[in-house]
Amino acid sequence: MDLNSDLGEGFGVWPLTHDEALLRIVTSANVACGFHAGDPSVLRKVTERAARRGVAIGAQVAYRDLAGFGRRFIDVDPAELVNDVIYQIAALDGFARVAGTRVSYVKPHGALYNAIVTHAEQAAAVVEAVKRYDRSLPVLGLPGSEWLRQAEAAGLTTVREAFADRAYTAEGTLVSRRLPGAVVEDPDEVVERVVRMAIEGTVTAIDGSVVKVEPQSVCVHGDTPGAVEIALRVRDALLRAGVRLRPFASATAGA
Amino acid sequence: MDLNSDLGEGFGVWPLTHDEALLRIVTSANVACGFHAGDPSVLRKVTERAARRGVAIGAQVAYRDLAGFGRRFIDVDPAELVNDVIYQIAALDGFARVAGTRVSYVKPHGALYNAIVTHAEQAAAVVEAVKRYDRSLPVLGLPGSEWLRQAEAAGLTTVREAFADRAYTAEGTLVSRRLPGAVVEDPDEVVERVVRMAIEGTVTAIDGSVVKVEPQSVCVHGDTPGAVEIALRVRDALLRAGVRLRPFASATAGA
Amino acid sequence: MDLNSDLGEGFGVWPLTHDEALLRIVTSANVACGFHAGDPSVLRKVTERAARRGVAIGAQVAYRDLAGFGRRFIDVDPAELVNDVIYQIAALDGFARVAGTRVSYVKPHGALYNAIVTHAEQAAAVVEAVKRYDRSLPVLGLPGSEWLRQAEAAGLTTVREAFADRAYTAEGTLVSRRLPGAVVEDPDEVVERVVRMAIEGTVTAIDGSVVKVEPQSVCVHGDTPGAVEIALRVRDALLRAGVRLRPFASATAGA
Amino acid sequence: MDLNSDLGEGFGVWPLTHDEALLRIVTSANVACGFHAGDPSVLRKVTERAARRGVAIGAQVAYRDLAGFGRRFIDVDPAELVNDVIYQIAALDGFARVAGTRVSYVKPHGALYNAIVTHAEQAAAVVEAVKRYDRSLPVLGLPGSEWLRQAEAAGLTTVREAFADRAYTAEGTLVSRRLPGAVVEDPDEVVERVVRMAIEGTVTAIDGSVVKVEPQSVCVHGDTPGAVEIALRVRDALLRAGVRLRPFASATAGA
Repeated sequence: MDLNSDLGEGFGVWPLTHDEALLRIVTSANVACGFHAGDPSVLRKVTERAARRGVAIGAQVAYRDLAGFGRRFIDVDPAELVNDVIYQIAALDGFARVAGTRVSYVKPHGALYNAIVTHAEQAAAVVEAVKRYDRSLPVLGLPGSEWLRQAEAAGLTTVREAFADRAYTAEGTLVSRRLPGAVVEDPDEVVERVVRMAIEGTVTAIDGSVVKVEPQSVCVHGDTPGAVEIALRVRDALLRAGVRLRPFASATAGA
Repeated sequence: MDLNSDLGEGFGVWPLTHDEALLRIVTSANVACGFHAGDPSVLRKVTERAARRGVAIGAQVAYRDLAGFGRRFIDVDPAELVNDVIYQIAALDGFARVAGTRVSYVKPHGALYNAIVTHAEQAAAVVEAVKRYDRSLPVLGLPGSEWLRQAEAAGLTTVREAFADRAYTAEGTLVSRRLPGAVVEDPDEVVERVVRMAIEGTVTAIDGSVVKVEPQSVCVHGDTPGAVEIALRVRDALLRAGVRLRPFASATAGA
Repeated sequence: MDLNSDLGEGFGVWPLTHDEALLRIVTSANVACGFHAGDPSVLRKVTERAARRGVAIGAQVAYRDLAGFGRRFIDVDPAELVNDVIYQIAALDGFARVAGTRVSYVKPHGALYNAIVTHAEQAAAVVEAVKRYDRSLPVLGLPGSEWLRQAEAAGLTTVREAFADRAYTAEGTLVSRRLPGAVVEDPDEVVERVVRMAIEGTVTAIDGSVVKVEPQSVCVHGDTPGAVEIALRVRDALLRAGVRLRPFASATAGA
Repeated sequence: MDLNSDLGEGFGVWPLTHDEALLRIVTSANVACGFHAGDPSVLRKVTERAARRGVAIGAQVAYRDLAGFGRRFIDVDPAELVNDVIYQIAALDGFARVAGTRVSYVKPHGALYNAIVTHAEQAAAVVEAVKRYDRSLPVLGLPGSEWLRQAEAAGLTTVREAFADRAYTAEGTLVSRRLPGAVVEDPDEVVERVVRMAIEGTVTAIDGSVVKVEPQSVCVHGDTPGAVEIALRVRDALLRAGVRLRPFASATAGA
């Protein structure tokens, strides 16, 4: 099992994610590439530290939207989106190589992540970008999404992701953040859900039904001290449950 | 002899340089990397066309300043400048690789170019960035500049550049654009000067004295139809004078 | 009748609209406010020249998207959109006042203009922004749009706009640019259509039917030399047809 | 005596200054205008809260440099700087008016603040911007600076500022942050210094000599919980010492 988290989401004077703490917890770091967050000095620092700790570096590609932190859908021309994504992967990969490693997977961020669950043209654009840049790079996403479906059809390695603190529908999709109960806030419940995802491959949906998720990676948050604490508990609980934690991707994949 | 020119200096809806025409004239393209100009789709298009025509692709790294087109000195912390430069080279290099080639040299742009003629800390930062990213990349600059001096001391390959349409002082530096006569405007004179630079390695300074420049590359402009026309005449005159035109750097240098 | 056009759509070194020529043709200038185009020095220059010529200054508010020129729909939180619009109107109004006049109307740009034809929440946000900033400011838009409907309901002065070179559906909406025939390219036809719009209040739709448009303002383009030429012909034809050209809004409206 | 502090220095998802707490402490709020920090929704919130509490709103104008937080000198063309400053004051003033008040003074931020202590052309540009926008607006600055000298010569109202936690040279200038002892870190000492500045008009310089500063406003920080705590202690100590705290500028000044 892999634990992933968003890192490097500061910009200029503004910090956000607790990068140092998270790098001691996760096995894969989704690093912001400068379009929604992450200036070059942030990228340098995070990639060097991740490399030193053996944490896999993923390109967290996003819409170009610092003011909106990549959380707003943008109806980008897919042909331009291909290039926006190549730019971001390449920039981060430069720092990864300077740090002696490589970008070893791609995970879209925020509104782009959500859009390509269903938006076929934008999903195709991100798939095309990864294929053009390096077809050996695995991609991380939601099971059943257009994104993973197209990536697989294109011959890319796909990795199924689950979310530690998000509620699921009976169909296995995430409950919209606009609905009540979308986020599981009780730390004990979060920990228990992740262990069950890892051991049994299932999660209890918001309607009480049991859903198969079988994640290869679980996403934890790290943008508040409380979130870091929960991430740490998730990690400990998985280890105690005998789950082996390691990156799903190795840096050599992208070499 | 190499002919270089700035390309890809549009952004979004705004075009600037006559990329298509220039790629038929020059042997090396200094491609904007997104900090002073050049969005990802511009980078994609220019690198693909340059690759197709065998024009060498250089990273034209700059201060982060779209509003000022990289023409204003910014007192960036050198440690951050290192990372800003790595980011830009890496992003462009991604597109070069997608196009089947590589970034094969680095040339700073605008105010950064001018600053590191004398600004030792910023010059050191750009040198450090190139060394970290790929120490086999040649760097282009003004003979006698701090930039080329430090680059050479650091073991980088340095390439001496001259300007087709700029007046020189008796010391071999460029006459400031704020002074009268800084730019040679007569096309015939521009052509004649370049041929002499190429054949004899000299240029007549603004005070009438003869200065040694011995360029390995000559920079021509392409941001107006008139400039493209002059660039074409420069190229033709050099060829008629028996000067062989070819890139000073090969893409394999950076491989 | 009023003639309006987009102006000030350059940014930094990049020009776009032929501002000087357009200010001799139109009676109302939709001036970019910095979010999709228009840096402060562009705003200063355009507002001063417009003021000198008695051309009314409108705030052309847009999504924050320089890279996309405001042409891409962005799913902005309506509460934030209110503030983005206030910011833009206020910034431009500052330059208008420095030039001795005021912003005298508001016209959304690009994707925002298109979105609020139907997007009720974003339309409400722009209406709210105008109301908060200055409820005496008229707003320009497409007849039948959600934008004009809500503006009217909120007590704002609404102004109906028609487009000189766009094809209309039988329902009086614009034919999507993605469809063939969306843009009328023959200059003679453009001129003839505008005169008929002004005199009879009608336009021939793409299916041959006659549609009532009754514009109070007609939008002409000015981003190419050819477009400026057509705008000039439209103006001359209207004057010859006895149509009086003057701004629909006076600067005192916003005082 | 006036207490001022920088507020509204967040951007998008990134908070920075503890605006809510500071508005209970200071009498004047230097509000970021969007160039170094401060998106429109931040401006809206801060101006509304300041207006509600009777805290004077100042425009904290800066270089256009989000990535560098306005802390890096930029060699902007003074003619452009005039317009950059007008744009920022006007945008903030729009929100102030929406909140029922006005921008009532101008205080440059960061590197611009430091530059115009000596940089005559940039100082002249900021003075020109204030004069053009509203010559009744007071300006805040360092006694003896080129900025205050030129502002006074231009007929603007100038306000002398001192810093609660910065060391002074014997000449009354600030000790550079690059030198040891530049920042007074002991809270008790900070409080004691401010009271003495307010009562006696003097401060002990870093060499032990006594320097006249006679501030009309004292600047306190609020970007960390610790800084807010010190600001609160400064306020309480001044009140206990019988110093009356109130804004030096009233909103009607700019009306």
